This record gives sequence, C-alpha cells and structure tokens, in this order.
Amino acid sequence: MVIEKDDKLILLTNDDGLYAGGLKTLLEVMEEFGKVILISTIESMSGMSQALTVKTPLRVKLLEENYRHKIYACNGTPADSVKLAINQLAERIPDWVVSGINHGSNASVSVLYSGTMAAAIEGCLYGINSVGFSLNNFSPTADFSICKKYIRIVMKKIALEPLPGGICLNVNIPAAKKNEIQGIKVCRQSKGNWREEFEKRKDPMGKTYYWLTGVFQNHEPEATDTDEWAIAHNFVSVVPVTVDMTAHSYIDKLKVRFKK
Amino acid sequence: MVIEKDDKLILLTNDDGLYAGGLKTLLEVMEEFGKVILISTIESMSGMSQALTVKTPLRVKLLEENYRHKIYACNGTPADSVKLAINQLAERIPDWVVSGINHGSNASVSVLYSGTMAAAIEGCLYGINSVGFSLNNFSPTADFSICKKYIRIVMKKIALEPLPGGICLNVNIPAAKKNEIQGIKVCRQSKGNWREEFEKRKDPMGKTYYWLTGVFQNHEPEATDTDEWAIAHNFVSVVPVTVDMTAHSYIDKLKVRFKK
Repeated sequence: MVIEKDDKLILLTNDDGLYAGGLKTLLEVMEEFGKVILISTIESMSGMSQALTVKTPLRVKLLEENYRHKIYACNGTPADSVKLAINQLAERIPDWVVSGINHGSNASVSVLYSGTMAAAIEGCLYGINSVGFSLNNFSPTADFSICKKYIRIVMKKIALEPLPGGICLNVNIPAAKKNEIQGIKVCRQSKGNWREEFEKRKDPMGKTYYWLTGVFQNHEPEATDTDEWAIAHNFVSVVPVTVDMTAHSYIDKLKVRFKK
Repeated sequence: MVIEKDDKLILLTNDDGLYAGGLKTLLEVMEEFGKVILISTIESMSGMSQALTVKTPLRVKLLEENYRHKIYACNGTPADSVKLAINQLAERIPDWVVSGINHGSNASVSVLYSGTMAAAIEGCLYGINSVGFSLNNFSPTADFSICKKYIRIVMKKIALEPLPGGICLNVNIPAAKKNEIQGIKVCRQSKGNWREEFEKRKDPMGKTYYWLTGVFQNHEPEATDTDEWAIAHNFVSVVPVTVDMTAHSYIDKLKVRFKK
C-alpha cells in the first residue's frame, strides 16, 4: 500500500475481532475515503473499555496488504491496537481513527465499558478525528448494510470540518429496516446503568463460579434528547464524547464544601 | 462480621492486588468509619480501566473474616469486583465504595485507564458515594501513612453530605513529606496524553514483540486549576468525576453541523 500525499490515512479497528461482519462493512466504506490500516484481534475483545496490556508483550502480524489496505492481527486490547498502530505501524499519523461497527449498542453508560469507543477515545487523545460506530443488534449475522449511508454522512461532515480537540463521536445505528430509519439526531448520553444479574453455577468439582450477565436500566426513558431515546425511535444517535471526565458543574460547590 | 443498623458498610477495592501497601493503609482508615467488605485480586490489575470479564467465569473466595471486615479474593477486574460484591456478597447495598490507595498518580487522562478509578465509577453508577485515592509514588515500598489525614478529611465531608448522583471523586496525594503538603485543592482534570514509546524486542525465536511504556505529556503545564498542577505543587488534588462523557458544550454546534 502506497500512501500518496493527498491520500487520507485511516486507522480502523473494532472490539469484535477480525472476522466480525461490522468490521468488514466499515472497511468497505472507509476504502471510499482513503487508504486503510486495519488492526484488530482474532478473538473478540468486548467490554475491554480503555484497558491496556502492561503485563504481557504485544505481538502484531501483517495478514494482508493490497493497494487500498493493510490488515494486521494484534493480541492487545482496542486501546493497545490504536497506540501500537500510531506509534509503530503507520507511515505517518493517521487522519482518522474509526472503530466498529460494533455488534450491539454503545449508547448511554455502555460508552464507559466499550472497547469500540475506547479505540475512538484513544485516537482522540492523540489529537486525531475519531468516531466509533455501533449497530443496535447483537446478532453475528446482523445486516450492517443499512449503516453505510450514515457512516458516509458522518465522515463527510468530519472531512469538511474537523472535530474540536478532545472530542470524538459515539454513533449508534438502530436495528431497523432501511426505510424505517428517521435520520440522524445529535444527542446526549442517557442516564442509566446496568443492573447486574450474575448467574451462579457449580463446576464439575462442586465449586461456585459466576457469569456476568446484566440488564440495562434507562433512568430517564421520557427524555427526548438522549441517545437511548433516539435509537428507540429509529434515529441514528450522534453523541459528542469528551475525554475530560471532570464534573465541571460541580467544581464550585465542591470548593465551598472543602472550605468549610 | 455483623453489620448493625447504624454501621456504615464500606466496599473497599483497588487495582494493585490484595498485598499492596496502599490497600492496607486504606483498610485501616476505613475501619475507623465502619464495617468493611474488601475485595481484590491476588495479582495486580493496573491499567484495566472499566473492563469487564465476559468470556471467563468469575471466582470469589472469602479469605478472612473478623468483627470489622471481610476480605475476599476475586479473579476479576476492579469493575467486576465492585459489581460482584454489590450483587452477590454484600448483606446490603454499601454506603461507600472506596478504592486505592493506588501506587501511582491517577491524575489527568490516567482516570480513563485506571482500574482504581473504574471501581469508584462503578460504585457511582450504582448510586453509591464513591472515591478513588492514589499516591503519586509508584514504589511498592512507598510511605502511605501521609495519606491517612487527607482520606479522613475527604470521607468526613462525604459522611456529612453525600455527593450528587453520577459524580465520584478522584483524589491524588503528592509524594511529599507530611509537613510539605499544602492542603487540599479542588480542581479539574488536566489536559494531556501519554506519548507511547514501545520497546521493540526479539524473543529467543527471533520474533518481534513490544512492551508498552509511555511518557505523560501535560498539555497545559501553566494552568493552576488542574490536578497535575496541584500535585506538582504538593497539594492533594480532588477532582469531581462524572459518568456522563457527553461533551455538552459542543452539542449545539454539532446540531448545526448536522442540519447543513
């Protein structure tokens, strides 16, 4: 793959692994925009959040190269993959970091656990325009083709004018039919949490173990400006995500409390 | 351990493992406030962020119980540990989730990678008052006793008046001598990032592998209202952290961009 001066260089990753249908679709769309460095794992890395691999060495293997893309397999987390690609593999700093399409929604607080969004946040920390895409459908055989139109719209907006520093996008696409999708809605992260219900089992030795399961609870189902509302009403949700976790609205009150 | 009606129930964890000096110090202070359920791993879990274990089962073992505490070993991440303790181990919903004392600072963007802060964020998602404590000293033999005074001050403030929903605290203590510490400073997360420098090595088979290293870059060393500034000037930094990652200040502008 030769990167010409005018080529956009796109770093592509996901957290569902190299053989995920969502990644294949996103690669197809990204090749319309530029040259692609794709890096992911063989196995899925769901729920890895911003985790980094610090205790075991990272390995990378170039699996495929043609004039439009290079595909690398890596044994690290999505955040590791982005760091490694930027620092060791890419010919120059990529123009975009694009992640997904995740199999399943990353709306509301799922952004905190998502490996897909961690990859976008990692790109953002490097000052690169970054977007995570997710389809609200966990099925491995989900139809990702409906996403293409909206991915193009979002990336064309970014091509036209970059995002501000420290902000990336969390884009969630409803699992609807093409003609049911109502358009794009810019919104905020819904308040909610996962109520965990662990499955408690006994292994063949009679010892207890637990599987993490969980049910999402939307704390504000009636608010119409949230990502959860948008997806439930067949809109594509676009949430600007900041890497600054400070609760700015509470700083002054907290100062008063510590002055007492 | 019997939990009386008036007892405060405190869930304590960390990401440096059960034998970390910082955890021992935090347990000592928490026992001044109430009954403690401590849960952590044998090995350290640094850099695990909000990662969840979804592919392997979780195991828990009660290691020790007396009238003041129960100590559990778990094989999960800090976020797993908090979920498991709240859902399966605790007699009732804990009053506080307290995490640390981390061996090393979790100021600036380290909050995004930190297992210590992930545990506090997890507690916060359950609506529990939660605080992560870190000492800006990576040495396993660091003197954590200087932290005690400030942990007491912070927790007394919270005992007096709970934090608002969706907000927890990131407390970083400078590696200074007792008489050098200037007090507590409420501040915001500093802008910065890690510039990763991977160490590239060859294994005995001649194959390449990488170790993640990294150097933190503070993007605003002159701002005096940040956690990085506070710690560098021997203040204890207290940052209110929100679970809402929406870049609220950018929503309106983004709406305009998507209307064009």
